[in-house]
Amino acid sequence: MYDVFQTDRLIDLWLAEDIGACDLTAQVMIEADERGAFTMNAREPIVVAGIDIAARVFKRYDPDVDVRVLVRDGDRVAKGAKLMNVSGPARSLLTAERTSLNVLQRMCGIATLTATYVEAIRGTRARLIDTRKTTPGLRMIEKHAVACGGGLNHRLGLDNGVMIKDNHIAVCGGIGKAVERARRKLPVLTKLEVECDRLEQVREALDAGVDVIMLDNMSVPAMAEAVQFVAGRVKLEASGGIRLDTIRPIAETGVDYISTSKTHQSAPAVDIGLDETA
Amino acid sequence: MYDVFQTDRLIDLWLAEDIGACDLTAQVMIEADERGAFTMNAREPIVVAGIDIAARVFKRYDPDVDVRVLVRDGDRVAKGAKLMNVSGPARSLLTAERTSLNVLQRMCGIATLTATYVEAIRGTRARLIDTRKTTPGLRMIEKHAVACGGGLNHRLGLDNGVMIKDNHIAVCGGIGKAVERARRKLPVLTKLEVECDRLEQVREALDAGVDVIMLDNMSVPAMAEAVQFVAGRVKLEASGGIRLDTIRPIAETGVDYISTSKTHQSAPAVDIGLDETA
Amino acid sequence: MYDVFQTDRLIDLWLAEDIGACDLTAQVMIEADERGAFTMNAREPIVVAGIDIAARVFKRYDPDVDVRVLVRDGDRVAKGAKLMNVSGPARSLLTAERTSLNVLQRMCGIATLTATYVEAIRGTRARLIDTRKTTPGLRMIEKHAVACGGGLNHRLGLDNGVMIKDNHIAVCGGIGKAVERARRKLPVLTKLEVECDRLEQVREALDAGVDVIMLDNMSVPAMAEAVQFVAGRVKLEASGGIRLDTIRPIAETGVDYISTSKTHQSAPAVDIGLDETA
Amino acid sequence: MYDVFQTDRLIDLWLAEDIGACDLTAQVMIEADERGAFTMNAREPIVVAGIDIAARVFKRYDPDVDVRVLVRDGDRVAKGAKLMNVSGPARSLLTAERTSLNVLQRMCGIATLTATYVEAIRGTRARLIDTRKTTPGLRMIEKHAVACGGGLNHRLGLDNGVMIKDNHIAVCGGIGKAVERARRKLPVLTKLEVECDRLEQVREALDAGVDVIMLDNMSVPAMAEAVQFVAGRVKLEASGGIRLDTIRPIAETGVDYISTSKTHQSAPAVDIGLDETA
Amino acid sequence: MYDVFQTDRLIDLWLAEDIGACDLTAQVMIEADERGAFTMNAREPIVVAGIDIAARVFKRYDPDVDVRVLVRDGDRVAKGAKLMNVSGPARSLLTAERTSLNVLQRMCGIATLTATYVEAIRGTRARLIDTRKTTPGLRMIEKHAVACGGGLNHRLGLDNGVMIKDNHIAVCGGIGKAVERARRKLPVLTKLEVECDRLEQVREALDAGVDVIMLDNMSVPAMAEAVQFVAGRVKLEASGGIRLDTIRPIAETGVDYISTSKTHQSAPAVDIGLDETA
Amino acid sequence: MYDVFQTDRLIDLWLAEDIGACDLTAQVMIEADERGAFTMNAREPIVVAGIDIAARVFKRYDPDVDVRVLVRDGDRVAKGAKLMNVSGPARSLLTAERTSLNVLQRMCGIATLTATYVEAIRGTRARLIDTRKTTPGLRMIEKHAVACGGGLNHRLGLDNGVMIKDNHIAVCGGIGKAVERARRKLPVLTKLEVECDRLEQVREALDAGVDVIMLDNMSVPAMAEAVQFVAGRVKLEASGGIRLDTIRPIAETGVDYISTSKTHQSAPAVDIGLDETA
Repeated sequence: MYDVFQTDRLIDLWLAEDIGACDLTAQVMIEADERGAFTMNAREPIVVAGIDIAARVFKRYDPDVDVRVLVRDGDRVAKGAKLMNVSGPARSLLTAERTSLNVLQRMCGIATLTATYVEAIRGTRARLIDTRKTTPGLRMIEKHAVACGGGLNHRLGLDNGVMIKDNHIAVCGGIGKAVERARRKLPVLTKLEVECDRLEQVREALDAGVDVIMLDNMSVPAMAEAVQFVAGRVKLEASGGIRLDTIRPIAETGVDYISTSKTHQSAPAVDIGLDETA
Repeated sequence: MYDVFQTDRLIDLWLAEDIGACDLTAQVMIEADERGAFTMNAREPIVVAGIDIAARVFKRYDPDVDVRVLVRDGDRVAKGAKLMNVSGPARSLLTAERTSLNVLQRMCGIATLTATYVEAIRGTRARLIDTRKTTPGLRMIEKHAVACGGGLNHRLGLDNGVMIKDNHIAVCGGIGKAVERARRKLPVLTKLEVECDRLEQVREALDAGVDVIMLDNMSVPAMAEAVQFVAGRVKLEASGGIRLDTIRPIAETGVDYISTSKTHQSAPAVDIGLDETA
Repeated sequence: MYDVFQTDRLIDLWLAEDIGACDLTAQVMIEADERGAFTMNAREPIVVAGIDIAARVFKRYDPDVDVRVLVRDGDRVAKGAKLMNVSGPARSLLTAERTSLNVLQRMCGIATLTATYVEAIRGTRARLIDTRKTTPGLRMIEKHAVACGGGLNHRLGLDNGVMIKDNHIAVCGGIGKAVERARRKLPVLTKLEVECDRLEQVREALDAGVDVIMLDNMSVPAMAEAVQFVAGRVKLEASGGIRLDTIRPIAETGVDYISTSKTHQSAPAVDIGLDETA
Repeated sequence: MYDVFQTDRLIDLWLAEDIGACDLTAQVMIEADERGAFTMNAREPIVVAGIDIAARVFKRYDPDVDVRVLVRDGDRVAKGAKLMNVSGPARSLLTAERTSLNVLQRMCGIATLTATYVEAIRGTRARLIDTRKTTPGLRMIEKHAVACGGGLNHRLGLDNGVMIKDNHIAVCGGIGKAVERARRKLPVLTKLEVECDRLEQVREALDAGVDVIMLDNMSVPAMAEAVQFVAGRVKLEASGGIRLDTIRPIAETGVDYISTSKTHQSAPAVDIGLDETA
Repeated sequence: MYDVFQTDRLIDLWLAEDIGACDLTAQVMIEADERGAFTMNAREPIVVAGIDIAARVFKRYDPDVDVRVLVRDGDRVAKGAKLMNVSGPARSLLTAERTSLNVLQRMCGIATLTATYVEAIRGTRARLIDTRKTTPGLRMIEKHAVACGGGLNHRLGLDNGVMIKDNHIAVCGGIGKAVERARRKLPVLTKLEVECDRLEQVREALDAGVDVIMLDNMSVPAMAEAVQFVAGRVKLEASGGIRLDTIRPIAETGVDYISTSKTHQSAPAVDIGLDETA
Repeated sequence: MYDVFQTDRLIDLWLAEDIGACDLTAQVMIEADERGAFTMNAREPIVVAGIDIAARVFKRYDPDVDVRVLVRDGDRVAKGAKLMNVSGPARSLLTAERTSLNVLQRMCGIATLTATYVEAIRGTRARLIDTRKTTPGLRMIEKHAVACGGGLNHRLGLDNGVMIKDNHIAVCGGIGKAVERARRKLPVLTKLEVECDRLEQVREALDAGVDVIMLDNMSVPAMAEAVQFVAGRVKLEASGGIRLDTIRPIAETGVDYISTSKTHQSAPAVDIGLDETA
């Protein structure tokens, strides 16, 4: 879930950044009319994300490049899988190559890591969600990568839902008043989430009519209690210090969402290469 | 080593991305004249990188925010270290906070990981260097983070030095001819590096008068042999599949540079928080 | 509710548009060191909206201009009310004047018209809301003007809530299935609204668990029936052909929101002038 | 009279504004390969303006959309007239639809209102002209809409002709000296207009050799006197508080131009819809 | 005559172009807290143009740089004259220096050359004017430089006055019809110029009521005849192959304007240096 | 050596600058469906540079324009040579014409002048190089023009090689220490040049292991001595006050490079015209 039109503007910035004044190597070592053909290959098992973006990098740089995408976002592919064929002016292929690979390696890295977290909570009611702790400049494509790995997106940005925190509650004099204040001004299609770190706040939030309650750094038993108390009347999000080895019991409490930034903020890049087509 | 003027333009894009139409929470929950004060704290031991950029995020968003930076890029600080104090209009602090943290967590993550690699080769002649496999849009600040961790930068971009590869050599009919071709057209202050994967290529490259020779995916003994053969006449870069547990023997061969993208492409974000000043 | 940082970028575009190559009159007729002082006056009774934006137009063009804002957004002021004093370099004042007035006249026009609609439904439960039929390029500031007039905002943009329409429902095979499909992918803090044009759809939407139901071009009795049926379980929005002379009975049905684009898409500019300060 | 190349840049901004992060509804409710076909219809009698711009909105967003424009700018069409057919990827059609309609409804609204003013002075020598009181960001397309309605454009921007006003005259010590000062520096192809509010100023302006004289808020008899006195030697513009019900007598005085901002600054949007093609 | 606000945007582009990723020399050789002070000196006699722009280059790059401008645009200064003092952070001074000098050397070069042409026609009625043959991206500042040298500007751009040429006349069936066509649509404050290459066209143009007549590549006697014929009723512009050694006789024919692009398109840069302040 | 993708962004700015609000003449005098065909002709003997850029100006403005390029960058062509045929919508041809010619006349001017300098040193070892004294905004295309004339490029920008000057040396305490300091931080593929103005500095620089030594304003005999001393161990650049009539003896000293900004900073535009195709 990302917009192609908006993404094209990002691609232009990425290309400009890497190229700078010009690609000296391509200009010096390759004739203007030389042509080439390459295949992009997964060098380890991955969950694919961003394949169309990686393809558009070549097309934005030079519309004469021909790209054939061989997989789809969300696909799980084995080591050695062919992801994309590109052919056309050799200079253009070499100039755009690194930018295309850089974005794809990062996005697939996120999708691949996300999938392991999603796998860990399979069979429970919980869905894995992301946070706003994304790489500056890559918000939507990192969120898309999370979705490719089976996760769901939380807020897209600061204009997308309201999060009421401790200090807001303190200033307003309680959750009820804070929510009332927000509702008076908030756009009609905006949801409201409140951070709670103990059960009595959960109660108060429920009474206040919030849309989502974040259980912030609560113990597993406390979360279980909250789930039981809320009984499906609002959505519950578990948050705080989630790790792959601790996520399953949390999911089993019955919460609706478990949020983590690990899957996008700390995902290692996967290994993808571009090889000359034989 | 990054330019403040150019970085300000990036900061503007990052802020725009996160804010979108407007920060609904800040607008709704906080009065326009409310003020706040926060301290940014390291929640684990880190090598600092990007502290001035993180500070400028607040200033770009609102010049009325007051920022006091308490550490310097390159500093190693302990868990709990105070990194920065910010105070001013509460709305502005909350709107800019996430973007500031996102960039700082990523840059410190890179510097901290780089430092472990640099530590691993301490006492050898080798310097750890980076690659062009940076996050699209963050080239210079990721390279700066590598430098904060004790690494050195390789190419800044495609306009910055020339890399001659296998297929260039094949097309030109040998390294000598490829280099000659490049020198005829290259800007005067541009260095030239050749990728070699066997010793006879190293010899050929040396004769051709290149500036740097990349030993690409060579074995440790082969690299040692190349070092001995070259005897300091040109710089040698070891490249390919470097890992923290394999880097020391490579460094001990006597190569000048060891390049890896691990330190920037796959560095986990470090934990940094913004806490209300008591 | 708009972001000052984002709005500054709009202001820059507006100034560039009007200035073009340069303000010939100011350059030719006024000495570089001449100074001036003007007062902005309401020439008819208005509801104020955009006063800070109108002020920033001068400051963006020339930080040496001194601006004193005398009213606040949302204020109702009489004919002749002083809105703002500006003083400083005469050339800058004259160059920026028209752009400042143009935006202010439009925004106050919207707020003033909105206020008449809001007045018409005073005492009912209904709140007046806007639509996405805003002037291209002025989305947020027109929505802010609606809020200054006492209205509430509907969707800020396409990334802000989901609207399910007839054809979506047809394709999915019913409202229930359409909503289910949306929920599987939608960001967590996103609300979902369904357009209904008859009561059985309202029932279906209620069962499907939507957040808001739009009563699209329904008769007043049908809307009243829908209100009774829904009984507060979800929010109801009356939409379609709302006019100032027909709005009250609709509001009295008990709907939560009444949406119209009239207040922003067709609001006449109000009369505001800039007079030399005596 | 607008530039397609420059307008494309505006269209991109408008689309980005409405889309934000992405069109959630289109992404979630519509399959990537779904196709659609719509017809744009006038829902009231209108004078067409901006039809090619409305068409380009679809093409800029997605070049794969197919657009067939069925009317031309300046055409008067009846209620129910088909204006445009669009077909192609359903997601793209729905994402771009609102922006296309928003600009078209506004432009046609201006052209339609302008035409009523133009009609009111038909048969006189006077031509209706616009002002710089346009919507910020829409200068040229609003001026184009005025032209579609039969009006003529006054200044395009501050770099387009010089307006000498009271205070300039006072500072320079008379109209003659003010004009002389301007002529010394003004670009050769720039016209010069002077605001006059009484007959003796008109005489002075005529002697000074201005190109156009604005009769500012003069009574109809005073204007008639000015016309007689000037006898065609320079152009005369009637300005100030023009209304549809007062414009005819002014036109009959024999002035060359009558300026108003009503036709663009306060024109209601016309009703245009996009309906699925049966 | 240029706009400071618009020029600032150009300055930003120029700085970004020269800096690229970052100023390696300044970053590496100079400490962050080092300070410096320089004086900008004319190394040959020049007419000053662009001194404030050259000063703003430093301020845009770093507001902490202190600039004292010592001359004014239009001044004639001797070899060795001090033009500007700059002091502040040494890195910023060195990074911005080249861009500041590049623009100043070019603008002063144009002003200085223009002044020699203006000198050559001193005492005649003719004013030297420029053309649209300016360096892409530098239109207004080159036109400003011409004005600093004593010249007058012709068209600022394509939106600034209309030029009717041979082929237009042919298509329309004569100058009269071409002018009539133009007047029907042209903005009110736009002047109209017609290119004539023989006397009968001058007559026709005069009858048609144009504002300026260009005498295109006419002989001096033919121009003299045109001047006599027109007798001041419209402005006359001599154009085509003007050289410094042929300009005087043309000016003495009595034409109003003599246009050349030599003064801006082919002006050599003047020698200006930045020396460390003793 | 320039990047087409980056250059397209410049072309867009150039077109926007000249067009402003719109091309009044083209809009008013030419029907929308009129077509035209023109040939671009050299009106003097020139060395071609920028022909593809001049062609792209038309295509960027209107993809429907058909362009046939008839020469190649670097070609020497005689007076009267046809350079390019353009045909298509007449309005587009006329609107884009001036911008296309402006850039081509400037670039060919540079290439043509450079070629005379290159000719003057033919047969020596020296290559003519350029400087950073380029027109703001035209860095790469002016450097490309120098290359078309047979020159070689020096630094592309501040991120491209390091220049150590007198004051750096003084601060560091000698050339050796300055170079050592630089090497500790410099990107691996960056060359280092030192400005020397006497022979003992040359010796010191050689010992320090710099890549290029600039002989700054040295006499010819001193340069010859430096050449002999250095004996090919590093590259030598002669710099300072080079003129066409003094360049040959300098080249004959045996230096590797002779740098001048004359060829780009002070090159007169060449005469190129666009004539209607018969």
